[in-house]
Amino acid sequence: MIDIHAHFFPRITREEAAAADPRAPWLADTGDGRGQIMLGEAPFRPVQQSLWDGRTRLAWMDEKGVAIQLVCATPVMFGYAWAPARAAAWAARMNDLALDYCAADPARLKALAQVPLQDIDAACRELERAKSIGHLGVQIGNHVGEKSLDDPGILDFLRHCADLAMPVLVHPWDMMGDARMKKWMLPWLVAMPAETQLGMLSLVLSGAFERLPKTLAIVFAHGGGSFAWLIGRVDNAWAHRDIVRADCPRLPSSYCERMMVDSAVFDPGALRHLVGTMGAERVLFGTDAPFPLGEQSPGSLVAATYAEDAGQRERILSGNARRVFGLG
Amino acid sequence: MIDIHAHFFPRITREEAAAADPRAPWLADTGDGRGQIMLGEAPFRPVQQSLWDGRTRLAWMDEKGVAIQLVCATPVMFGYAWAPARAAAWAARMNDLALDYCAADPARLKALAQVPLQDIDAACRELERAKSIGHLGVQIGNHVGEKSLDDPGILDFLRHCADLAMPVLVHPWDMMGDARMKKWMLPWLVAMPAETQLGMLSLVLSGAFERLPKTLAIVFAHGGGSFAWLIGRVDNAWAHRDIVRADCPRLPSSYCERMMVDSAVFDPGALRHLVGTMGAERVLFGTDAPFPLGEQSPGSLVAATYAEDAGQRERILSGNARRVFGLG
Repeated sequence: MIDIHAHFFPRITREEAAAADPRAPWLADTGDGRGQIMLGEAPFRPVQQSLWDGRTRLAWMDEKGVAIQLVCATPVMFGYAWAPARAAAWAARMNDLALDYCAADPARLKALAQVPLQDIDAACRELERAKSIGHLGVQIGNHVGEKSLDDPGILDFLRHCADLAMPVLVHPWDMMGDARMKKWMLPWLVAMPAETQLGMLSLVLSGAFERLPKTLAIVFAHGGGSFAWLIGRVDNAWAHRDIVRADCPRLPSSYCERMMVDSAVFDPGALRHLVGTMGAERVLFGTDAPFPLGEQSPGSLVAATYAEDAGQRERILSGNARRVFGLG
Repeated sequence: MIDIHAHFFPRITREEAAAADPRAPWLADTGDGRGQIMLGEAPFRPVQQSLWDGRTRLAWMDEKGVAIQLVCATPVMFGYAWAPARAAAWAARMNDLALDYCAADPARLKALAQVPLQDIDAACRELERAKSIGHLGVQIGNHVGEKSLDDPGILDFLRHCADLAMPVLVHPWDMMGDARMKKWMLPWLVAMPAETQLGMLSLVLSGAFERLPKTLAIVFAHGGGSFAWLIGRVDNAWAHRDIVRADCPRLPSSYCERMMVDSAVFDPGALRHLVGTMGAERVLFGTDAPFPLGEQSPGSLVAATYAEDAGQRERILSGNARRVFGLG
């Protein structure tokens, strides 16, 4: 199995974070393999050693049967709201630390870079540097403040990714919502899937795919959020309401062939609908490891859903990732 | 076919709206069967005559083969942010006008009431009055400002609905989101389904169904938004993250049997997944008529999805609605 969606968070000290930006996150190692991601004085999320230690991750991969894993930043590391120069230096440092993490076994742990997406020139420069030092692709958030993925600068960045043959993983972050979402991880359960759908629809309904190169490999996390479920609603709206189709010349679902998703949907019926909507060649195995909202028994959903179909299992669990990320 | 989700908007004049509340909507009849819902001086939405004229709606129902239709307020009529006394008087007036609309053929046009949900006592009183004059049930928004459906007052209201045997239709409104949603009806395509899911999860994850009577009939619009698609993600989160299950003693998906949804999902694969998740006896035909984001060829999705299964067609297109709304 090749897992294209997994996270790391390096051992950033409080001092290093404070020197980078007052909003930079850091890791409090609380012992016994546990820790806390901190924002200033405030705990952000309890985490475990496999998040910052590549050898621990490898042991988990051995136990779970994951051959290769692509790791990327935990989104709290993005720094998109910081001053561009600070964010650029931070992204470079995080990308170096990602390779340190992968050094535990560079054949099995691969990295996706982060970039300072609030500064497109700096983002393109860091993308080039990351590729030159061994990153396989790049992870971006689904928006930068009020700029969605159809922002002209972000589209320039995506073109640069295509030119460099660097696949893009889009991850939801900085979630919409209000005080009604304070409990029960509702931002992760409600707003993250909506954010991902919003990112995909921003590309589709703006007509951006008419101008982006077909060589762009763009993968959306968590099965593309709510996108595949709601594309019928979007097609119907496009057909019957002028303002929905104003900038999008073709039926929205026709652009499914320009996007990929991971398999992290946690339900066999949902996975079948996802594969039916996106196409089996555009669904890539992803666990969201090592977080509790990820797949705890990696590959079991795909295996259960396609128990009778070895071809689908192979495509989703490894073949598609080999093709998209150029793995041997 | 019995359509349980359709809207009306009465011929409110500018003067009547202004006298009710500065935020009250009104109808500009622009002639030739067209109009605009207005908010003060600003156009809110272009609409057609069947929205305010019951006879026009009946002609449409004849053409489309809809035997009975339940009509409810267009959500811009809710008035939940107004002073309670104003909202109570407005709700009573709208409920009277709903019955005027249905008077075109009271055997085929039935009304769901609206209530001033910011004032629970007033909402319960208007619910009782609406039932006494012939309303079949009540429509509410999925939230009142920052109060979700698990608000103690709203739960009291839902108990009162159960006591009176008045089914509840929950409709998304007042959608989350920011400047990234200004185009292409994104609030309707992204935020409405998220709002509905948030309403359902607020009841599930708060443990409210442990305290609500099982006789409560509660139906969520647009197939329950993103709920059925994401319930696997929610179950996984509940199983592996303590703060998700803090107030919810059972697996979230086990509460599907306490909720119903309409069939307005616009995709056969989505409808099959919805029926598989919620159960065929809990999916009720709904068109979202007369809006362009509704089903333009009523019943065609159900007919196409269950071409080989007359039992499913009958349940979804009429049987479930007869049972839930007590239609003969």
